[in-house]
Amino acid sequence: MITFDTHPEKYRHWQLKLDGAVATLVLTVDEDAGLVPGYQLKLNSYDLGVDIELNDALQRIRFEHPTVRAVVITSGLEKMFCAGANIYMLGTSSHGWKVNFCKFTNETRNSIEDSSSNSGLKFLAACNGTTAGGGYELALACDEIFLIDDRSSAVSLPEVPLLGVLPGTGGLTRLTDKRKVRHDLADVFCTNPDGVRGQRAKDWKLVDEVVPRNSFDDKVAARARALASESTRPEKADGVMLKPLDRRIDDTGYHYSHVDAGLNADDGSATITVKAPSGDIAATAAEIHQAGADWWPLVMARELDDAILMLRTNNDEVGTFLLKTEGDAGNVLKADAALNANANDWFVREVIGMMRRTFGRLEVSSRSLFALIDEGSCFAGSLFELALAADRIYMLDIAEGDGNPPHITLSDMNFGLLEMVNGLTRLASRFHEEAAVLQVLRQQVGIGMDAAAAEEKGLVTFIPDDIDWEEEIRLLIEERASLSPDALTGLEANLRFGGVETVSTKIFGRLSAWQNWIFNRPNAVGDTGALKLFGSGTKAEFDKRRV
Amino acid sequence: MITFDTHPEKYRHWQLKLDGAVATLVLTVDEDAGLVPGYQLKLNSYDLGVDIELNDALQRIRFEHPTVRAVVITSGLEKMFCAGANIYMLGTSSHGWKVNFCKFTNETRNSIEDSSSNSGLKFLAACNGTTAGGGYELALACDEIFLIDDRSSAVSLPEVPLLGVLPGTGGLTRLTDKRKVRHDLADVFCTNPDGVRGQRAKDWKLVDEVVPRNSFDDKVAARARALASESTRPEKADGVMLKPLDRRIDDTGYHYSHVDAGLNADDGSATITVKAPSGDIAATAAEIHQAGADWWPLVMARELDDAILMLRTNNDEVGTFLLKTEGDAGNVLKADAALNANANDWFVREVIGMMRRTFGRLEVSSRSLFALIDEGSCFAGSLFELALAADRIYMLDIAEGDGNPPHITLSDMNFGLLEMVNGLTRLASRFHEEAAVLQVLRQQVGIGMDAAAAEEKGLVTFIPDDIDWEEEIRLLIEERASLSPDALTGLEANLRFGGVETVSTKIFGRLSAWQNWIFNRPNAVGDTGALKLFGSGTKAEFDKRRV
Repeated sequence: MITFDTHPEKYRHWQLKLDGAVATLVLTVDEDAGLVPGYQLKLNSYDLGVDIELNDALQRIRFEHPTVRAVVITSGLEKMFCAGANIYMLGTSSHGWKVNFCKFTNETRNSIEDSSSNSGLKFLAACNGTTAGGGYELALACDEIFLIDDRSSAVSLPEVPLLGVLPGTGGLTRLTDKRKVRHDLADVFCTNPDGVRGQRAKDWKLVDEVVPRNSFDDKVAARARALASESTRPEKADGVMLKPLDRRIDDTGYHYSHVDAGLNADDGSATITVKAPSGDIAATAAEIHQAGADWWPLVMARELDDAILMLRTNNDEVGTFLLKTEGDAGNVLKADAALNANANDWFVREVIGMMRRTFGRLEVSSRSLFALIDEGSCFAGSLFELALAADRIYMLDIAEGDGNPPHITLSDMNFGLLEMVNGLTRLASRFHEEAAVLQVLRQQVGIGMDAAAAEEKGLVTFIPDDIDWEEEIRLLIEERASLSPDALTGLEANLRFGGVETVSTKIFGRLSAWQNWIFNRPNAVGDTGALKLFGSGTKAEFDKRRV
Repeated sequence: MITFDTHPEKYRHWQLKLDGAVATLVLTVDEDAGLVPGYQLKLNSYDLGVDIELNDALQRIRFEHPTVRAVVITSGLEKMFCAGANIYMLGTSSHGWKVNFCKFTNETRNSIEDSSSNSGLKFLAACNGTTAGGGYELALACDEIFLIDDRSSAVSLPEVPLLGVLPGTGGLTRLTDKRKVRHDLADVFCTNPDGVRGQRAKDWKLVDEVVPRNSFDDKVAARARALASESTRPEKADGVMLKPLDRRIDDTGYHYSHVDAGLNADDGSATITVKAPSGDIAATAAEIHQAGADWWPLVMARELDDAILMLRTNNDEVGTFLLKTEGDAGNVLKADAALNANANDWFVREVIGMMRRTFGRLEVSSRSLFALIDEGSCFAGSLFELALAADRIYMLDIAEGDGNPPHITLSDMNFGLLEMVNGLTRLASRFHEEAAVLQVLRQQVGIGMDAAAAEEKGLVTFIPDDIDWEEEIRLLIEERASLSPDALTGLEANLRFGGVETVSTKIFGRLSAWQNWIFNRPNAVGDTGALKLFGSGTKAEFDKRRV
């Protein structure tokens, strides 16, 4: 079983150094500390374990070190920044493992850009040596890239020529869409295993600066300070120390204080239940900071994030997530009001970022998502985003008096701050940005809607009554489980992200799809495929036919 | 060997009926006339041969019947509009054949939308019976969809539930991006093999009208006339009859009057040479109409289009296209001036559309494209689009006096009318829409640039001199042939289409990539896969693990 929670004291590969407004993340991969046996992590190459630490380190900076305004990512090795994903790990991994590894790596890199855009945390890649493959892709996720000019260190994307696969962790998309590299130069770059160094790397827009060795550290430090000075992170603030997750794992699933992920026997589904806050709800910035790591939105988001990661990594037989909520909708709306009113507070902003990225992670998890809105649920405001993320929403339609009819309620949080990775709110995405529809919905903020009202507004898919409910949900799960998991993954990836495209949607939807295809082709993974034979001394043999 | 040229008199599956401003394309598939043996085309299901006829019929309408302003697509069968792509054909086809079949089908459907947007030719799908899978995808490519309301005829996309593959011929993309279907309703629709009929089909935006049988023909005719009345196609004009292609096929390749596609032995490349016009160049609308089917831009585009199709269908071992031009650049620029000056003439507009779609076809052909600008070449204006379409451009750098130094020249045609499928000119796409760069280039229109000038302007990739030229090109071709064809296809598909996305780029780049992945998965094509077992009576068995 893979777990994703760690702590700086446990890091084997990364070191987090703090110096005023600038933090430095130093990568010095422990060759012998691969997550699974069978390969050595030479040359600062990485596996999932390295990225789990990076993800944790980023979270620590966001929450525990709020006065860090710029982050330098560099290497502790001589002449080697990072060689990218470990090839032997990739070569010996199953298709599913490769795809999941790339997905988490993408999410971590995208989160760097999310923090830069939304939280003012700026990133500088200080490439103090060879920067290859996934190593360069990590650099590409930063705001700027400095490359040492020592006549040997190059940036490169050697995946195509050496491995017969793509620079699929955002590489191709960021070259064109983020760094605006000319496509013919990108073609030359991506087919040359030696990459590009020195002035040419700058001329081709592959890096922002090339700096001689003797001034590298100074120039990096100066630029990091300059980036820090542009940041909107606070100059003075007390951090919020993240607590270990309150998680219990047993045969029935993953259980947390405010989230439960229950494995349902035999039907290929898991039920994820998110619980509303109870007791006093922090309203002011002071109360929120007082609550700190125990503040419900943060606890809920961290637990949900972990549950999603645990399920998708350890339970690939679970193809369907049933999304439920439980508790007092009023309390959720109070929390939403606090989130919205204090959105510019650094801590609240980070919590909102965590929520945004967690809901976003759900949508790229290659699982069918069904929201079940039944008695006792609290799909209000930010928790209604869970429903909007789903492929379908079922809402129980019972009369007042026949029980406790569920209601849904919109809040301001449904109209901003929790955008999908396509940059649109889920409501805007659902209604294809139709202004008139969104205008009407805006007027519903704070008003509880029963099933009939929700259906009339287009906010739910189906509203079975209490006679049909159980049978309909049972059939729904059964039907889904009978379909091809691959076809469903492709279907959902297309339907969830209609309309506008961003770097993130292109990485998940276009680049990853091509990479998945190639990861399935004999030219990469067959007995004579390039990924399989890398480092063996035997040259790959290709079926030359174009498809 | 598959050929793509045909003639209405040879059609086995389509009938073209003309009635004033409205043409009707009637699909009545000849079950026994499949393109290759082994399957019957029952229930108006189609294979590549059916689409080759549709493509030809569309060309005939564009050029030979200019006063047709609206096209009705319907079926000659009772209660069956079209069952989509033939499953037995798909189930018995190789991966490469499936992908190529889908690509041509997509291009034909996209060309319907191109004609609607750019030439004012409007399309109405008159779905007079069951409209399933690719049949519905054909309807989706039309401007409007009328569905008969007979209590049984439904529209459906049963690919996921019945076949374990995607509605990959534009279906998913057009549901969300063109018709703005809500994603949860699309999910229900795409997982229900029975589809949706009647009022619900209209409510969900799957069709524009549902019409009872007794008024169906009248309503369709009335709506077609209304669409025709909005068209910008001419009310009175003489058509240009398309002549049979002047094509010779032999072991060395495909040879035409103005295009040559030569197969190069052993190195996996083909050289496509496009020749400039010679003699008098038509300048006025009268002269252009006088030239008619012999007008160089039309002949050149038709021949190039055919050469691309022939190569990519019959020569999958050819992974690299070397793009060359030959002749008098001044004549190309004269032709460009005529194209540009008469762009609103119906015939010129159709020729420009043909050029635009042909260049666009090149870019989605899954082949490496290298433009070679050497002595005697004429990469001017619209022919320079060939170079801009390439992954790299090599231009010979020799001094005046050491031979005949090649020049490139821009024309107004490089700044509009020949847009890529992303909606941008190739120059705008190349320079990521940087206004300042495009402004400078605009000032170069009509000015011949030698290699150094072209390189300085960013218009070419490399400029070897005459000492290096031959060796460099040889190494280029050799190196390309040594790389994994799959990785190259993925690389090129990503790099060529940076930036903005459209329905077309999403169909080719996102939807097709997912479909290609699924087309490679055992759940679809394995011995117990759904595509393989369809119709056998044996239920597919899936590996339930999500990837």
